[in-house]
Amino acid sequence: MKRNLLLTPGPTQVPPKLCAALGKPIIHHRTPQFQDNIKQVVEGLKEVHQTKNDIYILTSSGSGAMEAAVVNLVSQGDTVIAVDGGKFGERWVELCQTYKANTIIYKVQWGKAPQAAEIKKLLTSHPETKAVFITLAETSTGVTPDVKAIGEAVKDTKAVLVVDAVSGLAVQEIKTDEWHCDVVVSGSHKGLMLSPGLAFVSASPKAIALINQSTTPRYYFDLRECKKAMEKVDTPFTPAIGILIALVDSLNMIKKEGLQNMLARYAHLAKATRAGCQAIGLTLFPDPSCATNVLTAVNVPVGVDGEKLTKTMRDTYGITFAGGQDHLKGKVIRMAHMGALDEYDILTGLACLEKVLHQMGHKFELGAALTAAQKALNQK
Amino acid sequence: MKRNLLLTPGPTQVPPKLCAALGKPIIHHRTPQFQDNIKQVVEGLKEVHQTKNDIYILTSSGSGAMEAAVVNLVSQGDTVIAVDGGKFGERWVELCQTYKANTIIYKVQWGKAPQAAEIKKLLTSHPETKAVFITLAETSTGVTPDVKAIGEAVKDTKAVLVVDAVSGLAVQEIKTDEWHCDVVVSGSHKGLMLSPGLAFVSASPKAIALINQSTTPRYYFDLRECKKAMEKVDTPFTPAIGILIALVDSLNMIKKEGLQNMLARYAHLAKATRAGCQAIGLTLFPDPSCATNVLTAVNVPVGVDGEKLTKTMRDTYGITFAGGQDHLKGKVIRMAHMGALDEYDILTGLACLEKVLHQMGHKFELGAALTAAQKALNQK
Repeated sequence: MKRNLLLTPGPTQVPPKLCAALGKPIIHHRTPQFQDNIKQVVEGLKEVHQTKNDIYILTSSGSGAMEAAVVNLVSQGDTVIAVDGGKFGERWVELCQTYKANTIIYKVQWGKAPQAAEIKKLLTSHPETKAVFITLAETSTGVTPDVKAIGEAVKDTKAVLVVDAVSGLAVQEIKTDEWHCDVVVSGSHKGLMLSPGLAFVSASPKAIALINQSTTPRYYFDLRECKKAMEKVDTPFTPAIGILIALVDSLNMIKKEGLQNMLARYAHLAKATRAGCQAIGLTLFPDPSCATNVLTAVNVPVGVDGEKLTKTMRDTYGITFAGGQDHLKGKVIRMAHMGALDEYDILTGLACLEKVLHQMGHKFELGAALTAAQKALNQK
Repeated sequence: MKRNLLLTPGPTQVPPKLCAALGKPIIHHRTPQFQDNIKQVVEGLKEVHQTKNDIYILTSSGSGAMEAAVVNLVSQGDTVIAVDGGKFGERWVELCQTYKANTIIYKVQWGKAPQAAEIKKLLTSHPETKAVFITLAETSTGVTPDVKAIGEAVKDTKAVLVVDAVSGLAVQEIKTDEWHCDVVVSGSHKGLMLSPGLAFVSASPKAIALINQSTTPRYYFDLRECKKAMEKVDTPFTPAIGILIALVDSLNMIKKEGLQNMLARYAHLAKATRAGCQAIGLTLFPDPSCATNVLTAVNVPVGVDGEKLTKTMRDTYGITFAGGQDHLKGKVIRMAHMGALDEYDILTGLACLEKVLHQMGHKFELGAALTAAQKALNQK
């Protein structure tokens, strides 16, 4: 008997109810029966995105939706600003450069948040900028920027604001319309608690105008075709039918819990996780002022091999944390709070972390993380 | 109580065992546990493709894999030949034109097969041709070309042969290596009996050389990155984990039945379906000499509304056939034999077809299709 608990920032834990939904028989996608599913999914996704904008459904990973944003918004030679403060910001840069945008890279130190004032300054000196690319929850560092302030900085310029919310949607709040997020990309396998395979793009009227101007060749990810199809409650290509059917149930679960209650639950779990980690001497990697509720990234104590730590937790005890990426490899561990997780899962994760740290010789009082987390969990 | 029987050329019927597999808990994709799944999938896919070539795994519909073939093989201005004898041939043309290839369209009458001699002639007059794009089973018309002969025509030229086997793999034989098919694209939701969401590309050394030369910008579908990742038993982006885990079971089912037995079963079902249709006065749409085993396309009898026919079968009786596409809308019906189907499913489909045709006033003896099919099914 070994647990299979995913405390990773994607894929996330799929609740048993949604596992069952993923195993439902397939129906044909070009039928009124399936169109009912599409309608419910689009409506539910709009609620979670807090938007009235169009939502397009793609069959791909989250990175496919990021590619869709770039090829549909950016033409060769266009000026864009890409915020790079971690692995996923880096992906925006790579995509923009691949498609030959004149890419202004706003490099942010890992663990720090990009500043709206800085983006405003860049936009003032580059008024021709067509798009600004940011990340809602930079899972490599555990940072969430002030999206609302960035939206204010971008909204009266020529540029559209594009938010990678793949890790974040339904976990870390995004008020798409109120915060002026023109394009938001997301996926099925993070806050939506499903298997990876479906991705989503929301687009404001300002974004749609740009989509119609882009001269970058595109076919599979052509959002103009998505828009045409969506108006007929259809998709241009065969979608990931099974995941889409299960997404109806996922969105109903979110509706039942209530989006705000769900966001509050994740904030609560994040707070308890941090309290637990700090009680055994683990310091937060990101600047606490911009730490996301999506996951907690903490520094591995000096003298402990971080790679061995996560490997032992996973292979010996069945509890999967994520390690650090790039220069943080072995130096940071990351514990996600999103997906179908409750307070007992967080305590389980912390208990296993205590166990293996103890085995590896890190000095602390066993139970200290559990006690601190339990106190935080039971605080009003 | 209403059946949910899919006799459509994708998605296809998912067997209960694979529905259960699709509902298995998710594991993390960057783990040795998941790598075991990748290894088994690649090995199984190589057997079904009858190839020793590389196999790359993409998270997309089949059309995403077609896009991957085009953007990785073709640079702007390259000469290519695209065979267009139906909706899926048309997709090759659209893709090649989108990415600005100098596209020579070999237009084939719907229902007829492209000829190897004609392709040879085109290659002789355009020796600069980089790629020839064909379709293993053109589901819009029910045609399979002589891929072996086309492979012979292409193999000693500069061009690579690219086969869309999305509808066809594991149903209609393709001997990738023996027939010199440099690139074969396929998907999870046809012969592999799963939900859509995963797609595959096999690439020969000749194709890989071309992939390394292509100057078309690409990121999500960059097969160079797939190759690098595959060498480390990984994928560049988060794959459709759930479908990949279930694919292990699907490929084991195929192995257990035996690929050749499976292909023979589909041929047998196709023969019986045709005998049944002919017994009630329905004529085959494609030229019988090139009819595929993937599906049977028959002409709707004069005076019968084909759209109403398939709609009634689906909405009243839960048995889904496909209608005709484009100019064949309402004039053709298409009944697939692929997926988890046995002879009783074929008889069920024919019984429902008889029932609704009878209700719509088409004159024939009730039971004639069943009798003819039953005889064909029980012939050695």
